[in-house]
Amino acid sequence: MGTSTTVTGPGNDPADGYVHGYSGREARRLGDQADALADLLHDGTSHPPGSRVLEVGCGVGAQTVHLLARSPGAHLTAVDVSSASLDQARARVAASRPGARVRWRRGDLHDLPFPDDAFDHLFVCFVLEHLPDPRAALAGLRRVLRPGGTVTVIEGDHGSAFFHPDSAHARAVIAHLVALQAAAGGDALVGRRLAPLLSGAGYERVEVGPRTVYADGSRPALARAFTRDTFTAMVEAVRDEAVAAGLATPADWDRGIADLNRTAAPDGTFHYTFFKGTAVNPGP
Amino acid sequence: MGTSTTVTGPGNDPADGYVHGYSGREARRLGDQADALADLLHDGTSHPPGSRVLEVGCGVGAQTVHLLARSPGAHLTAVDVSSASLDQARARVAASRPGARVRWRRGDLHDLPFPDDAFDHLFVCFVLEHLPDPRAALAGLRRVLRPGGTVTVIEGDHGSAFFHPDSAHARAVIAHLVALQAAAGGDALVGRRLAPLLSGAGYERVEVGPRTVYADGSRPALARAFTRDTFTAMVEAVRDEAVAAGLATPADWDRGIADLNRTAAPDGTFHYTFFKGTAVNPGP
Repeated sequence: MGTSTTVTGPGNDPADGYVHGYSGREARRLGDQADALADLLHDGTSHPPGSRVLEVGCGVGAQTVHLLARSPGAHLTAVDVSSASLDQARARVAASRPGARVRWRRGDLHDLPFPDDAFDHLFVCFVLEHLPDPRAALAGLRRVLRPGGTVTVIEGDHGSAFFHPDSAHARAVIAHLVALQAAAGGDALVGRRLAPLLSGAGYERVEVGPRTVYADGSRPALARAFTRDTFTAMVEAVRDEAVAAGLATPADWDRGIADLNRTAAPDGTFHYTFFKGTAVNPGP
Repeated sequence: MGTSTTVTGPGNDPADGYVHGYSGREARRLGDQADALADLLHDGTSHPPGSRVLEVGCGVGAQTVHLLARSPGAHLTAVDVSSASLDQARARVAASRPGARVRWRRGDLHDLPFPDDAFDHLFVCFVLEHLPDPRAALAGLRRVLRPGGTVTVIEGDHGSAFFHPDSAHARAVIAHLVALQAAAGGDALVGRRLAPLLSGAGYERVEVGPRTVYADGSRPALARAFTRDTFTAMVEAVRDEAVAAGLATPADWDRGIADLNRTAAPDGTFHYTFFKGTAVNPGP
């Protein structure tokens, strides 16, 4: 559920980073998104005091603050490929969880700077969508997870978005975002693959379930926070890229965005499904 | 979640009925579907002893048996436009709920054979999808619902179906089913419209929520019961109609069905969302 072009996998230069850069506005968007979704996504994820938890690909810390809130006694390490993101994540945690201690590390998830079996739990949220080979990445992560340790993975799936009023223009701008993410080596439809990816990576006791956002006129705050300020804002952010790629004319693009925002009106509805999975590392 | 061409609305001859007729096989399919989904769909729907409940469009009784199981003391009336369906519904209830008493009535939901305010609760499941004007139908139903009485509405939305492995052929056969249902005056995407339809029909305290079916390799029984024997079977049933309409070649159709069934394999996944809504009749 990040943007379309964050790719931290092999064959891509991490320095490319987010197409939107690391602006304050983008950081706020990710923060607002996480706040609106925190209960939905983090429910059920809590680790006991003293447990060693690694957040893989923490980005600007949008999820880190929620991990800390739900596992206050855990020993949290957060790793990201981007120093700039880590700086923002550190600042975010300092601001919202002043007493929290997090060990911050810069590193590529395909070559993590930790010894074998270093963690009891891994948390991987909105990361696989950006990787060319998410199965290999998940398999590689098992090295730093002790046998019997667990992994939690959360991903969206843009193919789960449907809405009223329906609109071919709105569907098109979402499809363009999916295409841009695919061109960058990612997969904005990865949520539906979570279970086979975890199984294929050698994890056991794989349990995946949908976490659905549904907003209608009886939930105006959710329609504003999710439909407009999270989902549509995320699509809108790649306007220039989509137009430059010839995927849409500016007029068609703007029509699609307007139609998406229209679904947040009192007589509109919007549906989106995240997938959350947990699994156990059987060991080597 | 019925088939594509049941239309009981005005301007359509009820005698047209289901395109698949009222064969034993079709009745069993609808029954199996209801059994697999009963908990998901009926959870939260229970009426106190003595309350007057009307099931609108009971069809072959697939939901009637579950209504009876959850509201054993309610006074249930079931109405359908088809005498043949009512006969099957009566037989189904007699077989599975021998002691249950149901008042069966033949009638068009747009002109119900009941006095004003005759019921405390209405139950409308997989009916709106077949109607040319579901808002008008819901508004008309308020006449037989006492002021302060409640309505429960359940509908699917075929646009909520996505799966792994993804397949353009599979998406196409679903789109053909949607097109056939639209050509027959219905809307296989009605689920997303449930909230505005209820509000627009004059109901108050409208509450709609998604009821999601998600099957993967960890749920082989659900994948079989829902992905294969309910959803894919429903699509497959309109093969001849879709081919005759020129929507698909037989080969493309069969490929689409095979690809849908493929998603029920151990490394496949399937997602579908029903919508269930409740609302209160404020009175005239």
